[in-house]
Amino acid sequence: MTLTRTDDPLEPVLHALAEAARPPALQNFRDAALSADNKAAAGYDPVTEADRAAEDAMRAVLAAQRPRDGILGEERGRSAGESGLSWVLDPIDGTRAYIVGAPSWGVLAGLRDDTGAAPRARLGMMDQPWTGDRFWGDGTSAWTARPGFSDGTETPRRLSVGPCAALEEARICSTFPEVGTAEEAAAFHALAARCRLTRYGLDCTAYALLAAGCVDLVVEAGLHAYDILALIPIVEGAGGIVTTWEGGPALEGGRILAAATPALHAAAMAALQDSMTPGGC
Amino acid sequence: MTLTRTDDPLEPVLHALAEAARPPALQNFRDAALSADNKAAAGYDPVTEADRAAEDAMRAVLAAQRPRDGILGEERGRSAGESGLSWVLDPIDGTRAYIVGAPSWGVLAGLRDDTGAAPRARLGMMDQPWTGDRFWGDGTSAWTARPGFSDGTETPRRLSVGPCAALEEARICSTFPEVGTAEEAAAFHALAARCRLTRYGLDCTAYALLAAGCVDLVVEAGLHAYDILALIPIVEGAGGIVTTWEGGPALEGGRILAAATPALHAAAMAALQDSMTPGGC
Repeated sequence: MTLTRTDDPLEPVLHALAEAARPPALQNFRDAALSADNKAAAGYDPVTEADRAAEDAMRAVLAAQRPRDGILGEERGRSAGESGLSWVLDPIDGTRAYIVGAPSWGVLAGLRDDTGAAPRARLGMMDQPWTGDRFWGDGTSAWTARPGFSDGTETPRRLSVGPCAALEEARICSTFPEVGTAEEAAAFHALAARCRLTRYGLDCTAYALLAAGCVDLVVEAGLHAYDILALIPIVEGAGGIVTTWEGGPALEGGRILAAATPALHAAAMAALQDSMTPGGC
Repeated sequence: MTLTRTDDPLEPVLHALAEAARPPALQNFRDAALSADNKAAAGYDPVTEADRAAEDAMRAVLAAQRPRDGILGEERGRSAGESGLSWVLDPIDGTRAYIVGAPSWGVLAGLRDDTGAAPRARLGMMDQPWTGDRFWGDGTSAWTARPGFSDGTETPRRLSVGPCAALEEARICSTFPEVGTAEEAAAFHALAARCRLTRYGLDCTAYALLAAGCVDLVVEAGLHAYDILALIPIVEGAGGIVTTWEGGPALEGGRILAAATPALHAAAMAALQDSMTPGGC
């Protein structure tokens, strides 16, 4: 059964990247090596090892299928292209989750398109190799499936954000309570105090669950382009909004605000800006 | 293939309980109904509905297989028995995780044995129906498998805690940064500040990952018996320690401290007690 559901001719590349990354990304997950005394094995970092191996596996797919496109990878840096398209890869987004054995980390792969008037996040995918969950989208539609399962979840299901429009009804997520700087943390906590439920520790899964209608707001700070680009077409494809805290384009990272509805986005942005010092960085 | 690995003749009951609970526990997970406007559907609580259905399914197994044993269930309360044994059930431990679609919640089933000089947590199981992860133990050994998978994870693997003996090397978890009372939260945060990595949002999965060697400390407050009893034989079976913050028996709940090693347990208990007011509740 084909997983392809969007109109984008490059969607199959996302699925090929996910399949290639799964075995190397899982190689040290929940491994006893992660609990070994680091002092006894100086320089051995099992998460970074899995991270690099998964990025190399994705780069091999792109070398074969998309040799003219550029690549920006968390582990191996930037490779120039000549097509105006570039693949933005974070092979293991959520290193701390990986270390403690929690399957909220994900393999991220996004496609940045610089051929138009403004750069855009054109395609994106988040894959969780342990749970089997894959989420992907093209900004117009977004989908989830567990490829290879045989319980019904292997069939792609269209994602749609929830209807939440008011902070008081919202379920809000951030990966760490520390959020970013002290000022950013204070702004987050002032916002979260007005929401119905706050949840930490979800990493990239929080954005996928926003697209699935289970979470209403995700607020983070200090993100890199490779932490967020792949998630934008998923959230937008499900009907949600992703910007910076100031409402600008999110595809370069920084302070990120994702919301299920325009009204909720506006309310959260106003609350964050009320807390931030004007002119502050 | 049988999953049975411990010497306890009642271990198969744990697996029967897990299999019975899976379909009802999953019935509303990641369902759009969870994002529906609650104001429009007064009295409809999809998590509680799944919770009750899963407990009823487990009670049906026990009525058939263990009619003389007692039951303490989170949703349906206490049913007296006449054998000195009672099954302690929390069909969905981690309601907030369930609401946001994060598979860190679990189905808990434990066996309390009151036939000896002191009550003890004799058998315990934590099952995660979405990821397929099952963890179980009898205090002497502990195991994990993903029954029904065909990638190798369907074969039970013995669990063993990690070697961490010092707070400075420890990975510590608590479900919420608020922990419990303000005083309990302050004690937790003073301890966590000395640890290497702090992670929130894992619910019962944190104890399972401690047994798997991926987490070194779990500290919580305000737990009920049905939140913790099933987890004790898993942690102890993997070589770990579970007590109250004061070092007493954990099977009635309260303030819980689980640790990978005796040295780490002693260091964490001392740190928590340093922060608590003597004579405080």
